[in-house]
Order: sequence, then C-alpha cells, then structure tokens
Amino acid sequence: MLELNRLIGALALGALSLSAQAVEWQALPSKAPEPANNPSTPAKVELGKMLYHEVRISSNGVLSCNSCHNVMGGGDDNRAGSIGVKNQVGGRSAPTVWNAAFSSVQFWDGRAPSLEAQAKGPVTNPGEMGMKSWDDVVARLKAMPEYTKAFALAFGSEDSVTADNAAKAIAAYERTLITPNSAYDKFAKGDKSALNEQQVRGMETFAELGCVGCHSGPAFNGPQLPEGTGFYQKFPAIENGVFEAKYGFMADLGRYEATKDQADKHLFKVPTLRNIALTAPYFHNGKVTTLEEAVRVMGKLQLNKDLTESQAADIASFLNSLTGEFPKIEMPRLPAYANKAFPTE
Amino acid sequence: MLELNRLIGALALGALSLSAQAVEWQALPSKAPEPANNPSTPAKVELGKMLYHEVRISSNGVLSCNSCHNVMGGGDDNRAGSIGVKNQVGGRSAPTVWNAAFSSVQFWDGRAPSLEAQAKGPVTNPGEMGMKSWDDVVARLKAMPEYTKAFALAFGSEDSVTADNAAKAIAAYERTLITPNSAYDKFAKGDKSALNEQQVRGMETFAELGCVGCHSGPAFNGPQLPEGTGFYQKFPAIENGVFEAKYGFMADLGRYEATKDQADKHLFKVPTLRNIALTAPYFHNGKVTTLEEAVRVMGKLQLNKDLTESQAADIASFLNSLTGEFPKIEMPRLPAYANKAFPTE
Repeated sequence: MLELNRLIGALALGALSLSAQAVEWQALPSKAPEPANNPSTPAKVELGKMLYHEVRISSNGVLSCNSCHNVMGGGDDNRAGSIGVKNQVGGRSAPTVWNAAFSSVQFWDGRAPSLEAQAKGPVTNPGEMGMKSWDDVVARLKAMPEYTKAFALAFGSEDSVTADNAAKAIAAYERTLITPNSAYDKFAKGDKSALNEQQVRGMETFAELGCVGCHSGPAFNGPQLPEGTGFYQKFPAIENGVFEAKYGFMADLGRYEATKDQADKHLFKVPTLRNIALTAPYFHNGKVTTLEEAVRVMGKLQLNKDLTESQAADIASFLNSLTGEFPKIEMPRLPAYANKAFPTE
Repeated sequence: MLELNRLIGALALGALSLSAQAVEWQALPSKAPEPANNPSTPAKVELGKMLYHEVRISSNGVLSCNSCHNVMGGGDDNRAGSIGVKNQVGGRSAPTVWNAAFSSVQFWDGRAPSLEAQAKGPVTNPGEMGMKSWDDVVARLKAMPEYTKAFALAFGSEDSVTADNAAKAIAAYERTLITPNSAYDKFAKGDKSALNEQQVRGMETFAELGCVGCHSGPAFNGPQLPEGTGFYQKFPAIENGVFEAKYGFMADLGRYEATKDQADKHLFKVPTLRNIALTAPYFHNGKVTTLEEAVRVMGKLQLNKDLTESQAADIASFLNSLTGEFPKIEMPRLPAYANKAFPTE
C-alpha cells in the first residue's frame, strides 16, 4: 500500500508525463469482466433490469436505482447531490452506471468491492431509497409472485428471493451497460479520421501533461486491478486556497470516511472518463459545472500546472470523444401489485 | 345532456340487463384513433416517449409522467393517491395510461377533452410535477439542444419547442400504449378456449347484472363518443351508509369540481376495465384493494344488487381475462444536460 501511495504521489506530481505516441491507447472491450461467482445469464440480466427499474424497492415507492443512475441518459442524474426518498440531498454526486463494470471497486470512496456489494447499499440508505432492511425488500418482492418466478429462472430455485441474489442480478444487468465505439475507440482501433484535429491535440496534451498517469486503460480509470482492489488518488493532491475557497473539495475526507485510516484522507477512486461530457457536474461534490473548468482544476490540483484556455478546450474536446454508443434497451415488464394498495408513508 | 343523464340513470338502475349472447363483445382495435390535428409519426412518438420519461420536466427533476403512470407495469402506480414533487399525496388514484387513447375525455372528472390537453395538466400541477409554468418547461427543454432537434424532426421547424407540441408528442406516444390480444379478445374473435369456465360464467354474469350497460365497447368504458364528449356515471348511483362509512366515496364531488354544475355532482368518467387486475387499488379514491370487493361495491352502489361471493369471484375472474399483451418498448435516449448542474430546490 505504501508503495502504491508513493507511486500515486509521483503520478500526482506529473512524473509520468508521456508523449501520446508512448501511451497505449486502449479501446473499450465489448464485454465487461464477470466474477466467477456470478456469471451472467439472460434470465439474471432480465431480473436485474426489473430490479434496477423497480421503484417499489424504495420506501416511498418513487425511487429506483435508475432515479439517480439514469440509463436513459448518461447513467447519472446531473446533480451535485442526488435526491432521496424524503427529498434529502445526498452528499456526493452520483457516479455513472455506464461502464461501472470496468471499475474494480465502487462508490467514490471505493467502499464496495464489487457491483454486487454496491447494489445493496443505496436501497437501505435512509438518505437514498430508505428501506428499513433488506428483509423488508425481500418481503415486498415476495408479495409479487412474478418476482419469485423470475428469481427461480435466474437462480434455479423457488426459494431464491434473497438480498444476495437481488444484488447479483442487478450487477449482471449493470455488466451489460457498456458504451463501446466512441469516436476515441474508433481512433484507437485505427480509424484516424474518427477524431478531429482539436481532439487529437487534446489527446496529446492529455498524455503530455500526465493526466494519463491516473486516467489510463480502456475506461480511463487506471490500471486494471483485481475486483475489490481500488485505484485511488489523493484529491486535491496539491492544496490550493483559491480553488478550495471556490469549490470546497476538502470538506469531504474521501476514503477515510469508510476506513478511518489516516492515510486514506482525501483519497478518492479514480473515476472513469467515459461519457464524461454527459455527466456534469463534476468531482465528488459536483461543484464544477463545465468540463473545461474541471480540466483546469485537475491540471492545477493534481499536476500543479496552469493550463491555458486552449489546452483546457482541447482536452475537453478530446473528452467529448469518449462518449460511446449506448445499447438499445427494452423496458422491463414489472410484476403486478394485484389486490393491494402500495403503502404511502 | 339531460337526455344522456336520463339514460345514465336508467343504466344505473340495471334497466339494461342483457344476456351475454345479446351483447356485442368487441375486441380491442390494434390501433388507437388519432385526432385530425395530431396525426402520429415515428418522430413524434419518439419525442413523446422522451418527454414521457423525462424527469427534468418536474420541478425537482425526480418525477416524470411515468412515475405515476408506469408503462413498465399496469400504467399506474398502484396507489390510492400519487406522490408529488414535495411528497404530497394526490387526491385521486392515478388512472392507467394503457389504452387511455380509447377514452374520449381524460381525468376521473373528464376535465381534459383530449390526451393532448391531459398531458399539460400534471406538469404544472403544484401537487404533482410542480413546474411553475410551461414557459419554464420549455426553457428547460431548450437548454438541451437535442430536444430542439427532436422537436424539429417531429414538427418541422427549428422553432417548434412549445407546450402545445410537447403535449402533442406525449399524446402520440400514449396512442401507441395499447394492449390487444387479451384472453378476452381472443375469445371475442372466436377462440372459445381462450377463457376458462369461470371466466365465461363471469362474462355472462357481467352482462346479465347490467355491468355492461356502462362498461361496454372494446375498452369497457362505454360507447365510443367523439373526442371531448365524456361518458359519465353517477357514483355512487345509490347511496349506501354502510359502504359510505367504509370507503367515503362521496367526499369527492367528481365532475362538479371541474364544472361547478350541480348536475355534475358525483359524476365520474366510466373508466376502462382493460388491465384492471393490474391497477389496484380501485375507484377514484383507491379505497378498495381487491377486485372482488370492487365488483361487490359496483353491484350494490350502481345496480342495487347484492352479489354472492361466487358471482363476485366469477366476474373478477372474467376481469382478469382483460389483461392484454404489452408491447415491447425500447427505452428512449434522453438528451445530455451538458456543462450544467441540475438545480436542486
């Protein structure tokens, strides 16, 4: 861990500036990795889709996973803080669900070692979907016989309506939420006309400045580590009074909130840059609204470099080329809630 | 109007009891009627689908049309009263959007003469989607350039982002939300094995008791009247202290609330029975949770008949045969909200 932190420190100071030619630009795989204990099947993905769009697993029956991670859009909610069941505003900006399958840990602080573990969190978070317990969630699901059937199809038993299986199904659905064939991907695969001049310039600047030190790999979120092992970075790496006064990034202690380990103060998971043009506002607290300003902030706080307007614009233009192709998704059919009224809190 | 009310009175008292053989049992058409001033086009339907599922046209950005009229389910929210932007609970149970295109007026009190008129209501209702005005809605839509393009595709002008066009597009989408090929439809078209014995018995009882006096036609919501002309019924037609104490139906003055015409007191639009098994709880106030009890209530309050348990069960079984085939719907792609944070109230 110490070694990794030392490496991170070096990266933060721009020690890994590279020419664009030296960087291995990787296209997004067309399939996400699957853990050995949760291989994807069509029945599991279908159930996961139902659960992902199921408002009845929130306490007031209004919110679903999709409310904050909207797959009809950029996979988030374009907010600084998401809205929970009692209209509470969450403390961190919702990360995108698109390509989350390429992250080895989940949440800004990496506290969930897998998509499966992540899926269980918001449902019973009082500030998010507000269910009292997963037992209550399971009871609600069991009140709809079609869910029992869908779980049986996915998990091979009539007795399979459980929190673990719900999480596995949701994770399996999320592993289908990937966006290949961006302009960048086409370029990386050899179609040199896929990016325009400004985007190529931005790509080169992105490499030369050292952004690629952390935002590497096919998802631009760092090296591909085993599931459960996170790739973190201190943010801000370099304290800066002007930016801090403006954006208050340091109010959030990051991974420390999850581990209480002093060494984790202000560490955050390096997030994917895929579809970043769609997921404003930026950073864990969503205080920065434009991509250009986000780029300038990163330059100063992570690399100690004052980017020119044209450098920031070029990089932002390059980042726009990371918007991928969104697969067509058929809406799930949700089970009937027959002969009952949904409880109103 | 007086004539119609007199006819309604006669119907209410069961004057139109019929044998099942005498009833013209009609299958649901595979296409909904379209008004001359809003012919459906694929571009219009696609835009309508985007808007129908667009949470950003509610004040807090959490609710869409689909929140209360969930097309992934029975087209409603299975509640007595829907939840609005500030968690207010609405005063009437949300009607299903499925097959709403076969209603000649909309809302329980028929106050909207068309789907187009209906679509405009909830968006600016402070207790529902809570937008201050349609001007604000239009401003939000115009902040997303892809909407301007989608409106231009649907309405042929770059200047076409208007409330009227938004409503037209939503209505065009809703006209695709129809559910043909229920077991009942197959039976009505000649497949006598499509209904089981109990369902056939329920169908006969439904006719003989006089239910069919109001719940006639392909959507079981009365005669096919010109758009804008409603088919209403007094509910309860017969006052009954026991039921009133239990369910409080009369607290709502129905159509009178919209017209302030004394003759409209307690009149409600005759709702469709299509997919009724999916849309518990029942009646304008959602006070009745089971279909059997809803049938008993109707028997007593509209036809002055005490249904036996088996009559109620038979009719409920028949009503289950009205659950149709739901078309597969691809999720819309919603425009980016680039370089902005969604405002939090």
